[in-house]
Amino acid sequence: MKLLDILTALKKDISYIEKELYRGVETSEPLLAETSLHLLKAGGKRLRPVFVLLGGKFGNYDIEVLKHVAVPLELIHSSSLVHDDVIDNAETRRGQLTVKSKWDNRIAMYTGDYIYARAMSIIAELPNPLIHQTMAKAMVQMTIGEMEQIRDFFNTDQNVRNYLLRIRRKTALLIAISCQLGAVAAGADKEVCRRLYSYGYNVGMAFQIQDDLLDLRGTEKQLGKPPGSDMLQGNITIPVIFALQEERIREDLLQLIHRIHEDGDKGSVQAAVGMIRESDGMAKAEALADRYMNKALDALEGLPDIKTKKNLRDIAHFVVKRSY
Amino acid sequence: MKLLDILTALKKDISYIEKELYRGVETSEPLLAETSLHLLKAGGKRLRPVFVLLGGKFGNYDIEVLKHVAVPLELIHSSSLVHDDVIDNAETRRGQLTVKSKWDNRIAMYTGDYIYARAMSIIAELPNPLIHQTMAKAMVQMTIGEMEQIRDFFNTDQNVRNYLLRIRRKTALLIAISCQLGAVAAGADKEVCRRLYSYGYNVGMAFQIQDDLLDLRGTEKQLGKPPGSDMLQGNITIPVIFALQEERIREDLLQLIHRIHEDGDKGSVQAAVGMIRESDGMAKAEALADRYMNKALDALEGLPDIKTKKNLRDIAHFVVKRSY
Repeated sequence: MKLLDILTALKKDISYIEKELYRGVETSEPLLAETSLHLLKAGGKRLRPVFVLLGGKFGNYDIEVLKHVAVPLELIHSSSLVHDDVIDNAETRRGQLTVKSKWDNRIAMYTGDYIYARAMSIIAELPNPLIHQTMAKAMVQMTIGEMEQIRDFFNTDQNVRNYLLRIRRKTALLIAISCQLGAVAAGADKEVCRRLYSYGYNVGMAFQIQDDLLDLRGTEKQLGKPPGSDMLQGNITIPVIFALQEERIREDLLQLIHRIHEDGDKGSVQAAVGMIRESDGMAKAEALADRYMNKALDALEGLPDIKTKKNLRDIAHFVVKRSY
Repeated sequence: MKLLDILTALKKDISYIEKELYRGVETSEPLLAETSLHLLKAGGKRLRPVFVLLGGKFGNYDIEVLKHVAVPLELIHSSSLVHDDVIDNAETRRGQLTVKSKWDNRIAMYTGDYIYARAMSIIAELPNPLIHQTMAKAMVQMTIGEMEQIRDFFNTDQNVRNYLLRIRRKTALLIAISCQLGAVAAGADKEVCRRLYSYGYNVGMAFQIQDDLLDLRGTEKQLGKPPGSDMLQGNITIPVIFALQEERIREDLLQLIHRIHEDGDKGSVQAAVGMIRESDGMAKAEALADRYMNKALDALEGLPDIKTKKNLRDIAHFVVKRSY
């Protein structure tokens, strides 16, 4: 199942947002015009705009208002990916060259800065300081999460709690506020906004755990990059943390990770991926993702019974079952 | 004369803002706590906060309100310097190692992102969407200016207009909104805010031209880096553009710049600096800075006759006469 199959009723608005995304970064500076569109035009799930629009359905749905939330949230996501690709030294993303590899690191840094500034500028057009505040605070947490991730590269001492805190900041908060601010901008009830935040937060956690599982489980063709890319970068994800708890394989896995850290040895990545796939780490991580998905479904319970509720339920399932 | 001598009456508030700057980037993430304070603690002229406070004097001066403008503007400046040092591959700034050289480029990138997010978060606490909008729009222009600067590295075909547009975005706008938003936050008259913007804009232009002159005129001791650093990076500034207009030296200077571009030859930098110092480029650039300073003074004319007006006049002179 594809995301858009869940969202047939939103199809028109989603393509309008798509155009507004491109319009959002328009500039007469020719280099920036090209670099800032580069990643956007490569597509993506547009999960954050989708959540904004669905959140908006719980209030006075007006696409002309909602676009001021939907576009910035996707731009912020895009901006952070452009910067992440510098950090991760990534050659490709979404099947094409990254900005840092098509141009260079410097251009990628300023491109990210520019896209982010545009995002803040579009959201500032709404006359609602609470939305600006929520957005800005989430950005602070996101940047802290990114630094935590670098700091914990190849840190095999981290525990489940460290991991959860990090993905909370890095991923879940932005999805949480996507759901919440769509509803806030549409003037929905406070309690509705709160529940949507909680839904988004839990879906975001499930989404990131799933992402981390996919990196170990997928094929190179499915992923668009070799499996184990996270480990090659030093990003110790939850299946790895769980696998390291197994006495039977702990020492061997530690040694492999050490070797990957020392010389980026791809054979060791393959061996580590194989070891983790056969450990209980995968099933434990899946169970954790399911728990978050169930919490997300619980959060939906108290919401008004509109069709959107079913969409949100379907998306929660989609997030945990997806293979891309 | 030092900036603080002009501002004895503001001394207490300036040191309060100094503390708030440090508090503004506080975080429990230990690495970010250190990296984000690193440049801030090295000092700086704090020109932007000073302008915010002076602007505030034209309305209801309340430091508890004004700090929500003064702190973000200095943080944004600081964040952009941390990123610029990555671009310029700069080893030192303000007499100490840059974040990128004490840590690395990746950490500097995320440090800049974090400081910027904090800035936006602090300004968002003000219940005034117009201030958020003005700030966000200026940020867009600033990032465009930064990209223009990279794009024009070693471009000897650029004209005076290209240069002025670039420094407008890169420097002058942020100083303009510092003056303006201090007054806006203090609820000053629209016309007062407009004049302060114009003052700040023109002072900012004069300031950047002066900065570019200093890079050619200063000694290594005064500058904290060898003279001609701009040229070594490829940044073609206004005295160079004027010098290139002189038939007598044009070809030789072009050749030197070409050689600097090819192999970063420091001997060629020295030779080029010498050639420009003896050209009319220096005097022409000084005359241009003076013109902007005079425009800044003109903008002050219609302002209410309070003591702050004299401070602003003195700062305009300071900016053009300074040697650091």
